Amino acid sequence: MRPVLIAGLQTAGRPGDVDGNLALLDSAAAQAAARGAELLITPEMFLTGYDLAGGLPELTALAARDLLGPAGEIARRHGLAILLGAPEAAPEGLYNAAFFLDETGRVATRYRKAHLFGELDHGLFRAGGELFGCVEFRGLRIAICICYDVEFPETVRAAALDGAHLVAVPTAQMTPFTFVAEQLVRARAWENQVYLAYVNHDGAEASLTYVGRSSIVAPDATVLDAVGHGDALIYGTVDPAVVAAARAANPYLVDRRRDLYA
Amino acid sequence: MRPVLIAGLQTAGRPGDVDGNLALLDSAAAQAAARGAELLITPEMFLTGYDLAGGLPELTALAARDLLGPAGEIARRHGLAILLGAPEAAPEGLYNAAFFLDETGRVATRYRKAHLFGELDHGLFRAGGELFGCVEFRGLRIAICICYDVEFPETVRAAALDGAHLVAVPTAQMTPFTFVAEQLVRARAWENQVYLAYVNHDGAEASLTYVGRSSIVAPDATVLDAVGHGDALIYGTVDPAVVAAARAANPYLVDRRRDLYA
Repeated sequence: MRPVLIAGLQTAGRPGDVDGNLALLDSAAAQAAARGAELLITPEMFLTGYDLAGGLPELTALAARDLLGPAGEIARRHGLAILLGAPEAAPEGLYNAAFFLDETGRVATRYRKAHLFGELDHGLFRAGGELFGCVEFRGLRIAICICYDVEFPETVRAAALDGAHLVAVPTAQMTPFTFVAEQLVRARAWENQVYLAYVNHDGAEASLTYVGRSSIVAPDATVLDAVGHGDALIYGTVDPAVVAAARAANPYLVDRRRDLYA
Repeated sequence: MRPVLIAGLQTAGRPGDVDGNLALLDSAAAQAAARGAELLITPEMFLTGYDLAGGLPELTALAARDLLGPAGEIARRHGLAILLGAPEAAPEGLYNAAFFLDETGRVATRYRKAHLFGELDHGLFRAGGELFGCVEFRGLRIAICICYDVEFPETVRAAALDGAHLVAVPTAQMTPFTFVAEQLVRARAWENQVYLAYVNHDGAEASLTYVGRSSIVAPDATVLDAVGHGDALIYGTVDPAVVAAARAANPYLVDRRRDLYA
């Protein structure tokens, strides 16, 4: 295992404009690859937009397009993996999903948001049936969850117990929840000794204003990179040896009283 | 149910000097009662000291004294409850305990630290068999845990699901763990919508230097009162109506995916 540089794209995106978002993704992938990043993480529902003026009908129409083909082509062209926030159309309805496209453009795994938030999520999506997604990539074990999922300590704990080095979190965190972006994600990293990449929307959509404040946090809660508002790429190196050292320094995972947890 | 003012005593205490600590407690109880507080919380192992130069033999001798009689008399005299950090001598060995003495001096409940930390705890104590203690007091449901316990999200989650309004945490948090005192306790309050009182040692004992930084935090993670270093009383009002409002604003407890948690 070796250190792996990852990148996160914070952006307002172009709500409802898939081609515009593909162009943004292509540009970000080029920049991240040039910097040496091997994985690029987008915000939640990046490719279509999330809180669209046209609501469920607009999103359903966008989700019917081939979204993963062109996104996979961007991954392949730039030779880096992409964790892509996008809707997934299924016979039973839409899911708020994240797709891990490897550097060949293949979908290595797909995760469906498990904890739906408020009227927006419940009005658009069905809930996923897995607590987190999981992919092995360049010697890293990467757990995937989306936005509200990470606010539940149960999610990240389960990922850490499953051996995750990195929890990758496409998100669309809106006002007034700055506490989550600035504080809670650091607590999740600390209490589980995992890297955590929290990659947010910025700007506004139909009814939501996002808080930006994306960050990549180390297992000791150190903020490796972060941004306030604005479109930006953030970077962090994920090193399995650092995870192992953090787990020796703070042995929460072995000191758990499983016999007492319901 | 009505708001209840609580107080926390941060102090270096007098390691190994029970009579000296009783005098400190008496003085703090007088001040807190005069201010209108109905509950006074001490640090972990306050009454005897924690990391004593004489180690287990010294602590065992101190624990054999009548500790709760004189402490209960202080509670009764000042007419306020005291959550007291002290050792408990049992036939099988010592526990790192906290005793809830009501305003008549009666022991309403006793909690034994469940998550033992490092060589110090393991060298002195047996581990408790309950995840948290629980007491009903003036219409509040108060959960009790000690120091390292609160760093495990499982502990506070269980307390919140059990209906706690306040999680009271006598602690002895040492360097370099300022992150816990400054950040993690706020995350615990936020993610569970509970008040949290984190009442720490200050100063130094045989081998440990404490970080101070006691705080009382509201269910929205607002710090109601806090202190850096030094002996101090901190105060906060615990209002069950605020807990209810916080749980409506952030419905984590009802949005949990229990079906997915192992």
